[in-house]
Amino acid sequence: MAGETKALFFDVFGTLVDWRSGVARDAKALLEPHGYALDWLAFADAWRGEYQGALEEVRSGRLPFQKLDLLHRKNLDLVLARFDVSGLSEEDRRTLNLAWHRLDAWPDVGPGLNRLRRKFRLAPVSNANISLMVDLARRNDFPWDAILGAEIAGDYKPKPRVYLAAAEALDLAPQHCMMVAAHSSDLKAAAALGLRTAHVARPYEYGGGRGEAAPKVTVDVAVKTIEDLAEQLGA
Amino acid sequence: MAGETKALFFDVFGTLVDWRSGVARDAKALLEPHGYALDWLAFADAWRGEYQGALEEVRSGRLPFQKLDLLHRKNLDLVLARFDVSGLSEEDRRTLNLAWHRLDAWPDVGPGLNRLRRKFRLAPVSNANISLMVDLARRNDFPWDAILGAEIAGDYKPKPRVYLAAAEALDLAPQHCMMVAAHSSDLKAAAALGLRTAHVARPYEYGGGRGEAAPKVTVDVAVKTIEDLAEQLGA
Repeated sequence: MAGETKALFFDVFGTLVDWRSGVARDAKALLEPHGYALDWLAFADAWRGEYQGALEEVRSGRLPFQKLDLLHRKNLDLVLARFDVSGLSEEDRRTLNLAWHRLDAWPDVGPGLNRLRRKFRLAPVSNANISLMVDLARRNDFPWDAILGAEIAGDYKPKPRVYLAAAEALDLAPQHCMMVAAHSSDLKAAAALGLRTAHVARPYEYGGGRGEAAPKVTVDVAVKTIEDLAEQLGA
Repeated sequence: MAGETKALFFDVFGTLVDWRSGVARDAKALLEPHGYALDWLAFADAWRGEYQGALEEVRSGRLPFQKLDLLHRKNLDLVLARFDVSGLSEEDRRTLNLAWHRLDAWPDVGPGLNRLRRKFRLAPVSNANISLMVDLARRNDFPWDAILGAEIAGDYKPKPRVYLAAAEALDLAPQHCMMVAAHSSDLKAAAALGLRTAHVARPYEYGGGRGEAAPKVTVDVAVKTIEDLAEQLGA
């Protein structure tokens, strides 16, 4: 089965990078000098908490497709207001919004991707925009063959178009592609289109124990790390 | 001036890879065992000779956008008929069509790109489809940050949309991007949109002396090789 897989598609936020501590770190670095003392992890959680609602505006057709950076910015303004942060300049807001471009990978990701690269084509299939993926790849040495995902599909996961556009971009049938994610909803949508699926346990995504430690749907492979995935897939 | 350049966009066929000898080599390898003895370089030239006409069908709106692989295939069937090659199976035609995925870079390209990568974001902005660019990058170790170009724009160079879509994908204004090509027509179109331009001399693109040894339009930089470009841009 795994022998027929030609490409691996990766979810990124949570699956490959630790958005929660990265966003909290950058929020603290930018806001503390202005005299704010927030619960930085709660701030990161609140910002991320607006994510699915904003995507749904686009998925439903109520808003035209726009880059995730723009949706993040609208959500940032909402959340800053909610935390009573009012004195932040436009330039500081722009800088803080790019916190999502400066996230660090979980430690297993670099070694794992570099093994997997020898056997498979690798691409992010994320809801993030291309420039965000480029910045994370530069920062973390992700060896991507191409940046696929929402921006080339013009819609957001888990809409089918995003997975299918990625497979088509590599001239592959869905069954020759494997979606790798820490979120069962992502894998369920991919599997419904015929893609293979791999679940990566990321129990610390939302802080201790609140991430998915195991898949909630049937998957082809379930692993603890990207290095485990390389092992399982013989790479 | 060059200090403000953030990204370099590369034309690929002719500028980075030697399509003529590569296509001739693969045509010979596939057709000679079937008893054909063609002028292989003339065959490559004839196939490439149909290129602009096919693109123009899409640029004009007479055909909907389709991947370059599909246009190459239509042109291949035309050219095989013209060279009286009739006994080739569908599978062999498909294999031959992928000759464009198996081209080799001019020798200066690898070292040059690896220097440039330290200072600039690098992306192909080619008329080729994403999978073709992925295959050439794997074969030649091109260190791309992302695969941009015709397939993400839904149109073919020198239509403005292709250059502008590439700049937008990296969140850059056109003046912070530089188009690098061996063809003055490509650079003229890019410059008209505000991109900077670099001309690379490739006199051997069409065989001795028939490629552009110098730009026919005003450019920001004119070089002989991609290593020279790295030198000129301080990378």
